Amino acid sequence: MDTPLNNLGIVKRNILRADQSAVERLSRFGVATIHEAMGRVGLMQPYMRPIYSSARMCGTAVTVLLQPGDNWMMHVAAEQIAPGDVVVAACVTENQDGFFGDLLATSFKARGARGLIIDGGVRDVKDLTEMDFPVFSRAINAKGTIKATLGSVNIPVVCAGAQVNPGDVVIADIDGVVVVPAAIAGRVADLALAREENEGAKRAMFASGVLGLDYYKMREGLEKAGLKYID
Amino acid sequence: MDTPLNNLGIVKRNILRADQSAVERLSRFGVATIHEAMGRVGLMQPYMRPIYSSARMCGTAVTVLLQPGDNWMMHVAAEQIAPGDVVVAACVTENQDGFFGDLLATSFKARGARGLIIDGGVRDVKDLTEMDFPVFSRAINAKGTIKATLGSVNIPVVCAGAQVNPGDVVIADIDGVVVVPAAIAGRVADLALAREENEGAKRAMFASGVLGLDYYKMREGLEKAGLKYID
Amino acid sequence: MDTPLNNLGIVKRNILRADQSAVERLSRFGVATIHEAMGRVGLMQPYMRPIYSSARMCGTAVTVLLQPGDNWMMHVAAEQIAPGDVVVAACVTENQDGFFGDLLATSFKARGARGLIIDGGVRDVKDLTEMDFPVFSRAINAKGTIKATLGSVNIPVVCAGAQVNPGDVVIADIDGVVVVPAAIAGRVADLALAREENEGAKRAMFASGVLGLDYYKMREGLEKAGLKYID
Amino acid sequence: MDTPLNNLGIVKRNILRADQSAVERLSRFGVATIHEAMGRVGLMQPYMRPIYSSARMCGTAVTVLLQPGDNWMMHVAAEQIAPGDVVVAACVTENQDGFFGDLLATSFKARGARGLIIDGGVRDVKDLTEMDFPVFSRAINAKGTIKATLGSVNIPVVCAGAQVNPGDVVIADIDGVVVVPAAIAGRVADLALAREENEGAKRAMFASGVLGLDYYKMREGLEKAGLKYID
Amino acid sequence: MDTPLNNLGIVKRNILRADQSAVERLSRFGVATIHEAMGRVGLMQPYMRPIYSSARMCGTAVTVLLQPGDNWMMHVAAEQIAPGDVVVAACVTENQDGFFGDLLATSFKARGARGLIIDGGVRDVKDLTEMDFPVFSRAINAKGTIKATLGSVNIPVVCAGAQVNPGDVVIADIDGVVVVPAAIAGRVADLALAREENEGAKRAMFASGVLGLDYYKMREGLEKAGLKYID
Amino acid sequence: MDTPLNNLGIVKRNILRADQSAVERLSRFGVATIHEAMGRVGLMQPYMRPIYSSARMCGTAVTVLLQPGDNWMMHVAAEQIAPGDVVVAACVTENQDGFFGDLLATSFKARGARGLIIDGGVRDVKDLTEMDFPVFSRAINAKGTIKATLGSVNIPVVCAGAQVNPGDVVIADIDGVVVVPAAIAGRVADLALAREENEGAKRAMFASGVLGLDYYKMREGLEKAGLKYID
Repeated sequence: MDTPLNNLGIVKRNILRADQSAVERLSRFGVATIHEAMGRVGLMQPYMRPIYSSARMCGTAVTVLLQPGDNWMMHVAAEQIAPGDVVVAACVTENQDGFFGDLLATSFKARGARGLIIDGGVRDVKDLTEMDFPVFSRAINAKGTIKATLGSVNIPVVCAGAQVNPGDVVIADIDGVVVVPAAIAGRVADLALAREENEGAKRAMFASGVLGLDYYKMREGLEKAGLKYID
Repeated sequence: MDTPLNNLGIVKRNILRADQSAVERLSRFGVATIHEAMGRVGLMQPYMRPIYSSARMCGTAVTVLLQPGDNWMMHVAAEQIAPGDVVVAACVTENQDGFFGDLLATSFKARGARGLIIDGGVRDVKDLTEMDFPVFSRAINAKGTIKATLGSVNIPVVCAGAQVNPGDVVIADIDGVVVVPAAIAGRVADLALAREENEGAKRAMFASGVLGLDYYKMREGLEKAGLKYID
Repeated sequence: MDTPLNNLGIVKRNILRADQSAVERLSRFGVATIHEAMGRVGLMQPYMRPIYSSARMCGTAVTVLLQPGDNWMMHVAAEQIAPGDVVVAACVTENQDGFFGDLLATSFKARGARGLIIDGGVRDVKDLTEMDFPVFSRAINAKGTIKATLGSVNIPVVCAGAQVNPGDVVIADIDGVVVVPAAIAGRVADLALAREENEGAKRAMFASGVLGLDYYKMREGLEKAGLKYID
Repeated sequence: MDTPLNNLGIVKRNILRADQSAVERLSRFGVATIHEAMGRVGLMQPYMRPIYSSARMCGTAVTVLLQPGDNWMMHVAAEQIAPGDVVVAACVTENQDGFFGDLLATSFKARGARGLIIDGGVRDVKDLTEMDFPVFSRAINAKGTIKATLGSVNIPVVCAGAQVNPGDVVIADIDGVVVVPAAIAGRVADLALAREENEGAKRAMFASGVLGLDYYKMREGLEKAGLKYID
Repeated sequence: MDTPLNNLGIVKRNILRADQSAVERLSRFGVATIHEAMGRVGLMQPYMRPIYSSARMCGTAVTVLLQPGDNWMMHVAAEQIAPGDVVVAACVTENQDGFFGDLLATSFKARGARGLIIDGGVRDVKDLTEMDFPVFSRAINAKGTIKATLGSVNIPVVCAGAQVNPGDVVIADIDGVVVVPAAIAGRVADLALAREENEGAKRAMFASGVLGLDYYKMREGLEKAGLKYID
Repeated sequence: MDTPLNNLGIVKRNILRADQSAVERLSRFGVATIHEAMGRVGLMQPYMRPIYSSARMCGTAVTVLLQPGDNWMMHVAAEQIAPGDVVVAACVTENQDGFFGDLLATSFKARGARGLIIDGGVRDVKDLTEMDFPVFSRAINAKGTIKATLGSVNIPVVCAGAQVNPGDVVIADIDGVVVVPAAIAGRVADLALAREENEGAKRAMFASGVLGLDYYKMREGLEKAGLKYID
């Protein structure tokens, strides 16, 4: 096939990364807060789990599209990593082989990567944990891969149910993984901050015994909806 | 929130549908052929299954983003359907409630819809089968839904792992569901035709006993890769 | 253990079955309609599927609690079946062995059973289909079982996520399985009828092109919720 | 609908909690021991997992029935919590959105709750861990929820396959979650104690090399069953 | 690697097929009967399902070990098929791509194959159904595969949880898939026949209303086990 | 049945264990390394997970075939354990009951077992963790089991998708579980060592910023395959 129909076999070198100050500001918030600030969208599916419980990352996406059982493109991606990036790897089909291990992690780290999000498997988890190289994946799996078929780097991908464009901000913590489109990163950071400023006061109220029913003035709405208290 | 950050609460009325002649030509091919013609991309995940085995459709996508347990947007979508469209419904979270049944199907059909692709549940399957209204879904589920929260219509969605833009061509048959971006629909139809023309001859060869090993000249490659025959 | 703590090892012979006329009236409606009439509760989980697509049943529950890989209690249950009953079998743990086949079906049928709902596996599916003995199960599985450990018959059970008491009405069709407590069977039948009477008119309206948006007067609510139409 | 058919939209204020001394005694035993003492019933399904490995709780159930993607009833439940309670949340359909986070936990804790069992998702896991507020859930998920539809509080619910009545004792540890009906809590505590007293001696025997084959006198039974030793 | 450590990259040409008369006799029985005759072992996992409900096969196994997303070895296997064989394809990792379609089926059929058992995906299901070429698979999936990496043909494989040696008898019907080791095929056929001869009489008894409780003389055993009848 | 058709009801006392020095050498390597050294085969499925994150084991297999919900054979197996063994337990059907707890672990430990691999559930996880008795299982589950039906000990089994013969070397760590046939244990250890010696140098290279693209000389192959770099 002469002309690519489908973005396979392509590496895009220049990508528009989200504004660094917005990334830095987003890095202060949790995934749940950011996802709420965006209007409750942008999450990957909850099967994406950290390989160790303190894993956490925030950075700009370098995307990879993998073929099943083949991690050739991970090596291609390594070269495209700039400091502060997070690699986001999707696969053209469901596959949980161990596409990534300690050697690639060493290479990614040397390039300045802040972590990996992969809709597939990962191995050498003990080493990755010791290196404190955060990975969120759908599986831990020792299964090795080959290097035979082209995928792509820095094209738009669907990873664990979320659309990710190169340069988007990706934030991951124990609660999950959220993707913030580059164009709205600053505004989402503002909204996240507004939410967060609110939280301290709320927490104090609730700790003192005030109920959400009263704080959020829900009683009237519940009654209108027909809620009945019985003894 | 004043300005939408996230495409929620939006209905896009004018969408650019794929060229009708390309749609018509694509409708002659199976999902496997079209997916190969595109370079082996564009498939939804295989958990998407037809509600009856002869279900089949090809049309242009009207997209819907649903909230869990809520089918309000299906009614909003109905108005946006033009003859020849296929409705593609995604959900902001995994949910397999019965978002769709015979009344909505009646309405969709009256608008000229050719079927529904839904990453959720569907019910009234007996009626839908009798109406010959094709649906591909992740579940069959009698569970009813409410009408309380906004989603969107005709925004880009991720449905069962595939990115779908309004106006894209969606083809579904017993083998699965494939999405062809509107911009390349004509070229994909050409390539599918080229593949198909090839198939008849191949089938005759294989039926006569010629092996793929010989027809595709694989023996040398296998030997080079190290394949060993033993007795 | 002398005194049963837990309902294991018990067969209750006299159960209070739902009123027969209510059962008869409920048998005219689909599962989705009945579930809506009850306020959208009472469904089993959607992994419960018919072994053939026309399988359908409505009857009063004789309940069985099975041990994993053991179908002894199915034989005990057979004796408790009265004409018009449906056997509902749960298991103390997740297990999809083939607890039921054509011989038990012959026996159940001879006793007047209208079908089986089993949160486990079933086999001899070809025979069961030819006998037109409807079964809804979580799996089809040839795996045989033993007869070694006591469960119970006609105690309350949780089957596929739904609470079932002996004597409750169980209705199953292609859309799923719903349980109607015996005490409200008549009222649910009334409500289902009311819903159904409504449907014909609605269907005609929608077939003529009237939109749900107008028929259900949703436009104002959508606007108030903030829905925006763009071009 | 004027009269509730189905327990939706109801909050029961006065519930009969299990005897406190029985709860206290049950709190000394593990889930496996209590489940055995009851005759091997009462467990929730094993997909219910603690959000941190030392999470453990024992208390009386306040039950909640949720709608998918909607945590309104959690706020209603908060008011019904008495010191020593455990909140048990079920959902009318399978849904793993993040119904619960640190603010609700703060509120629950202020009311004296000992933890949460939820057949759904939970978020703010880092905060919950730091607060040492134990949660057992089917998922960890940042996905936020709305407050739009009524469920109920303190009605009987099916949670992760187990029937739970308000006031029942719920015990959870790394091995799973078990429900002890309030009426038999004292007797189950007695039986658990009897089992436990036995264990120390057994453990010493096995540690010294005595085999279960001999200790439990299994050899004869095995031979009778036909076990054959070969070399 | 010079010497194969692991059976990869090997094609065994001469395999010892089960005695043809035993195969023929086994073909008269259902999977459940054969599995019982063997002592309740030899089944594949129940996720293996026929692509059409009348699919059925009995033949001697030609085994294939596939790499994920790669169907090269299916072509190699075609040459090893003798009339009466069934191809049994396993994969080195979980993968449900569409390894097999109508062209390979044409080729397999020309060689005399009776069907395919594949722990992976299959496509062109409409064509396969029209050809009446039976396939049991873990998925239906249009996803295409490549031809790049060696697996093996006619080595022992684990397929869907069952050990299969080349030459073993494989029987599949709507109830599942069972593997009979070549060495015991004749004896298993004898035992299956003995079971089957028994069934007609039993069925007549049960149809006449005799209970299994009496026919199998279970009442005493149940009483001894402690079963209690209450009213 | 006089002569066993199927290996059920058998205990093999004398098994040929892999050479101890090979076992010792294999114990120095991780699962991923050993699996690669074998040519990327021999792994169990990745749903097998350690009950605590530092769990690790290497030893010779004593195999057990269990019946669902029945752990009788675990007691029979205990007697066959020699110091340095690992027990590998499979089940004749999918079942995740808690077949194993602290008392059996005490017994296994007293016999010199190094751990347990079980395609089922395990309980008393807190105790097992404190004893540092490593277990890899498909589930953690408090569900108790009975002792009623024969399985076997030291016959070949399929455990989590891998064929295991008694005496094979089984290595498990955070990345998964791998089985090395006894006959090739020494050679696999040699190959694993060769791989490992290589790794230190590679890691240093990658840490210094050298790319895999250059180190493995992939650029030419990628170009030949058609990879295109765009800006």
